[in-house]
Amino acid sequence: MNQDDLKKRVAYEAINYIKDGMVVGLGTGSTMYYAIQSLGERIKEGLNIKGIPTSEKTAEWARSNNIPLTDFSEVNHLDLVIDGADEVDENFQLIKGGGGALLREKIVANATDQFIVIIDESKYVQILGEFKLPVEVVPFGWEVTAREIEALGCNATLRMDNNGIFLTDNDHYILDCDFKVINNPEKLNQDLISIVGVVETGLFINMTRKVLISYSNSGKVIEMNN
Amino acid sequence: MNQDDLKKRVAYEAINYIKDGMVVGLGTGSTMYYAIQSLGERIKEGLNIKGIPTSEKTAEWARSNNIPLTDFSEVNHLDLVIDGADEVDENFQLIKGGGGALLREKIVANATDQFIVIIDESKYVQILGEFKLPVEVVPFGWEVTAREIEALGCNATLRMDNNGIFLTDNDHYILDCDFKVINNPEKLNQDLISIVGVVETGLFINMTRKVLISYSNSGKVIEMNN
Repeated sequence: MNQDDLKKRVAYEAINYIKDGMVVGLGTGSTMYYAIQSLGERIKEGLNIKGIPTSEKTAEWARSNNIPLTDFSEVNHLDLVIDGADEVDENFQLIKGGGGALLREKIVANATDQFIVIIDESKYVQILGEFKLPVEVVPFGWEVTAREIEALGCNATLRMDNNGIFLTDNDHYILDCDFKVINNPEKLNQDLISIVGVVETGLFINMTRKVLISYSNSGKVIEMNN
Repeated sequence: MNQDDLKKRVAYEAINYIKDGMVVGLGTGSTMYYAIQSLGERIKEGLNIKGIPTSEKTAEWARSNNIPLTDFSEVNHLDLVIDGADEVDENFQLIKGGGGALLREKIVANATDQFIVIIDESKYVQILGEFKLPVEVVPFGWEVTAREIEALGCNATLRMDNNGIFLTDNDHYILDCDFKVINNPEKLNQDLISIVGVVETGLFINMTRKVLISYSNSGKVIEMNN
């Protein structure tokens, strides 16, 4: 089973957790792409929910699948958030932000009762840090901010795209921080957000209690609870 | 002596700390307006410095006074920062951000050897909190962020201006948070920046060791060191 199939499978499974009447946070990324397609099918069949997208990209996908959207001017609480992750460790601490949407994803995940993370087996790791930790920073003085982040023990690289410096949906920059091994994610998150110029980090600490993992050998999606 | 005279006096005094060759951070606000005018005079007389402005407004004032400007793409360290404050307590902890420039002010103040705060006597207080603490937040989900801030013991009001919601130079919102009494500024700052959606707070903790205060009765500017 290739990675796309694994993503599809876990995405479809996650949609079963969405019940009529819910306000649902919609994460960002390739796995969520399949989840949103599947959610669109359910809505066609009569499911009645409202979504809050975590990125412009997700909003676009949701609209093209006729998923009704809302925002925090109308609701102040979500029933469920579904989102992918770049790494998940055994304590369900996460690295997110590979797609650059970590800030809105974190705001949405912070405002929900239940946050379900959907990944394929390659993202489930013993210890975080092989994936470079995305840190969202203010453009003004980012050079100084990067130096202070590096003093915590990493190389920090400014994310670029085809147009030059990558800009988040919030017009911030992303520093991809190569820590290699993150022994204490909670402390690192605290140290990072204490740095002036850091808006938010890709470390999601104690935010989820349910992870769905798609395994290749068995072809199964395993639900893990913490 | 009226408040404008007090501001002028302390502003002019502060300019004496600027030496040839320095890179100087230029704060924002009405007291800084006089400082920048005075600095412009010195530059006309031959003083050679470079400034880093903390707001678009300050940049504009600096340019109209022919003060050469630079930024963090050229320098990564400042020799001196001069800025006002909205409140200064006896431990030299500050509330800033009344003018809405707290984020850039904090980034600049964080990158300097010496940070001189200039105030008139009305800003020097026993305990912080009578001035509403400005907290800079991400627009997305600000309603949820405001609720979490209020849970720390304040009323949080979204700052408005003539055009609607006030936008900072970084396109964020400001919540003016009425704590009335801030007993532990360091802890409050830590609690606030831990909230998802908070970009930065107006609490400047352990950032300055020198405050110049302009007194009305004596007509003197007192230098206080910590």
